[in-house]
Amino acid sequence: MYEFTAPFQNPSGSPIRELFKYLGEPGMISFAGGYPASDLFDVDGLQQAAARAYQDSNRCLQYGPTDGLPELKRELVNLMARRGVSCALNEMLVTTGSQQGLDLLLRVLVSPGDVVLTEQPAYPATLQALKLQQAKTVTVPVDAYGVDVDYLATLLASGMVTRPKLLYTVPTFANPTGATLTRERRIALLKLAVQYKFLIVEDDPYGDLRFSGEVVPSIVSLTTEVEGSRDWVVHFASLSKIVAPGLRVGWAIAPAEITRRCVIAKQTVDLCSAPWTQAIAAEYLADGALERHLPRIAAMYGRKCEALCNELREQLGDAIQFHQPEGGMFVWARIDGIDASELLKRAIDNKVMFVPGKAFFADKLDPASLRLSFAAPGLAEIQEGAKRLKRAYEAAFAAGIPKH
Amino acid sequence: MYEFTAPFQNPSGSPIRELFKYLGEPGMISFAGGYPASDLFDVDGLQQAAARAYQDSNRCLQYGPTDGLPELKRELVNLMARRGVSCALNEMLVTTGSQQGLDLLLRVLVSPGDVVLTEQPAYPATLQALKLQQAKTVTVPVDAYGVDVDYLATLLASGMVTRPKLLYTVPTFANPTGATLTRERRIALLKLAVQYKFLIVEDDPYGDLRFSGEVVPSIVSLTTEVEGSRDWVVHFASLSKIVAPGLRVGWAIAPAEITRRCVIAKQTVDLCSAPWTQAIAAEYLADGALERHLPRIAAMYGRKCEALCNELREQLGDAIQFHQPEGGMFVWARIDGIDASELLKRAIDNKVMFVPGKAFFADKLDPASLRLSFAAPGLAEIQEGAKRLKRAYEAAFAAGIPKH
Repeated sequence: MYEFTAPFQNPSGSPIRELFKYLGEPGMISFAGGYPASDLFDVDGLQQAAARAYQDSNRCLQYGPTDGLPELKRELVNLMARRGVSCALNEMLVTTGSQQGLDLLLRVLVSPGDVVLTEQPAYPATLQALKLQQAKTVTVPVDAYGVDVDYLATLLASGMVTRPKLLYTVPTFANPTGATLTRERRIALLKLAVQYKFLIVEDDPYGDLRFSGEVVPSIVSLTTEVEGSRDWVVHFASLSKIVAPGLRVGWAIAPAEITRRCVIAKQTVDLCSAPWTQAIAAEYLADGALERHLPRIAAMYGRKCEALCNELREQLGDAIQFHQPEGGMFVWARIDGIDASELLKRAIDNKVMFVPGKAFFADKLDPASLRLSFAAPGLAEIQEGAKRLKRAYEAAFAAGIPKH
Repeated sequence: MYEFTAPFQNPSGSPIRELFKYLGEPGMISFAGGYPASDLFDVDGLQQAAARAYQDSNRCLQYGPTDGLPELKRELVNLMARRGVSCALNEMLVTTGSQQGLDLLLRVLVSPGDVVLTEQPAYPATLQALKLQQAKTVTVPVDAYGVDVDYLATLLASGMVTRPKLLYTVPTFANPTGATLTRERRIALLKLAVQYKFLIVEDDPYGDLRFSGEVVPSIVSLTTEVEGSRDWVVHFASLSKIVAPGLRVGWAIAPAEITRRCVIAKQTVDLCSAPWTQAIAAEYLADGALERHLPRIAAMYGRKCEALCNELREQLGDAIQFHQPEGGMFVWARIDGIDASELLKRAIDNKVMFVPGKAFFADKLDPASLRLSFAAPGLAEIQEGAKRLKRAYEAAFAAGIPKH
């Protein structure tokens, strides 16, 4: 019937969402999703916020401004101030999750064929968004301390990559690696951005979920230390991981002219994000409920992370390598000598799931890598899940799965 | 700082949203917005639906499926069945307002330079979306009975327009003209779509808002009468005008393969529309509240429309020409011998607003045209607003505003 054109000739959906079909199987333990823990939602606090929001029902029910409800924007400016970032109202745009912020930004900034840098391994929806926008994606490797800024400096100095439009990174508790970029690297990255005139796109959904170690300031907050760098940073944040994804409330902080263009694009994309959930979010933040509730989430994620890491070591010993993260939702691991996609099949047989690492690579993929999320399963499930992983690992080797 | 590229070199925002700055002026009467009447929202019914939805708080707070909450999709399938349209679940996608449906569709189907047909005058956000997607827009005129299908047939037969991807139309109570496409023209249009292999994009936010005359079946429901035509229709609908825009709940009905591609695009765009408001919408529909409440909205809009039309005739007599619509929210008028943009300046002086017609044209604009929305103002405001329009008209002539 219809003739489709690139980039939609033969689209494949998210490799992670493909795994959802197994989630419904009875007894399945999932380390696969990027979902926050449902049992840590502040159900009562959000119900009270919703009741307060509906006292002005028209604000909930009518169209809202494209850039976001003013009362929510004020609360988000205050929240960013507590995070050490000052921003003006015309530098902030409320989005349908931070995912929409990235989409709007790419549409405003990236033309087909433009060079875009991304850390690797990287959040798959970002790789997909770059593909949709027909960007020329160039990857920069990540180690245990975040994106390799020396590698990037050499790459840029070599002239092999010219005029990149932006670099995408999740510098704090990265998805998938859990790594946090050091302060020194952040400063070095800001200097490179000023020198080579590319935007640093700092995606920061997990920054508040720290359960150990010292706070590292966000890249956008460090722009005060590198002259001229504030013009070269776009910062995305979200309530999805710290309050609830069902609100679909994210926000972008960007130079005013970029923000203005994103707002104009958003007029065409959806007119405005849901005012009703924006109003609930504003009431929730105004009440201080986030500050009261967040420590509970971070503490429980810390316990879950520790349980997972301990049990992985206990069950798999030297066969598995990983760096224990200081926050966020993810452990990034390698099981040397195995193809994680093959391991996943045995894992599903054993009623446990994870995401094979290849989902996070645009090129040069590491087949032995995998991502384990500790956020959603309970402590007992985490322990049982690690035991099942061991059985899957043994079954995979017994079946003679070829080494990669 | 940043170098922007087309189509964002010098973007201008929505010409209607530009007028918002005057809305705050004390005593302003606005016929300008496309907002539904706030005082007709079913505040209690929606509060009850919200309470029921939150009984399963996890459904409200967690991520939802990209194509929409299953319980909402079932209700929307039932709603479409009551409107005479059968559709499968894999032919339906829930969107952040129907605006997002159009954006997703254009991204999936339209490459830069592709020919896209649109009725004219047309909804400005559609013209803007086509521009963003760098489509080659070709306009087809609209008269009092909707898009001129004979003109279109001649255009297509002439070979001057080849391989259009789609035709965009609001066939029922159009924005801005208020016109409804006749049943005969709908059938003829379906035959053209099959013959020339283009999609008819039927945008139907207002179809339920009929207050007089006979129901004309939607284009998608008439596909049963033209063989092979169902493959060539995409239908957009929304709760924004019949329940509340603040839910941001729209939906698209499209052939399964197009739907699949739109779902994949939406994974990248925003992962999912707000599950919380989707759950509220599902409860509202399941309860039958829409059927109970909708007649009140339609009846009041009928009274408002009649008040506006009567008062315009009373105040402006032969100077103003318009067709009284049978539903929807808009009266499309011409005031011969005047430039509506100039008239608007005098109107704002007199504390009344409308949208100059030029906002709705991609080419060949009619400067004497204007759009008046009767949905939001009250009956007394409508009468007073028409009186003020007359004063603005007299002031414009007294000031010697040049005829166009």
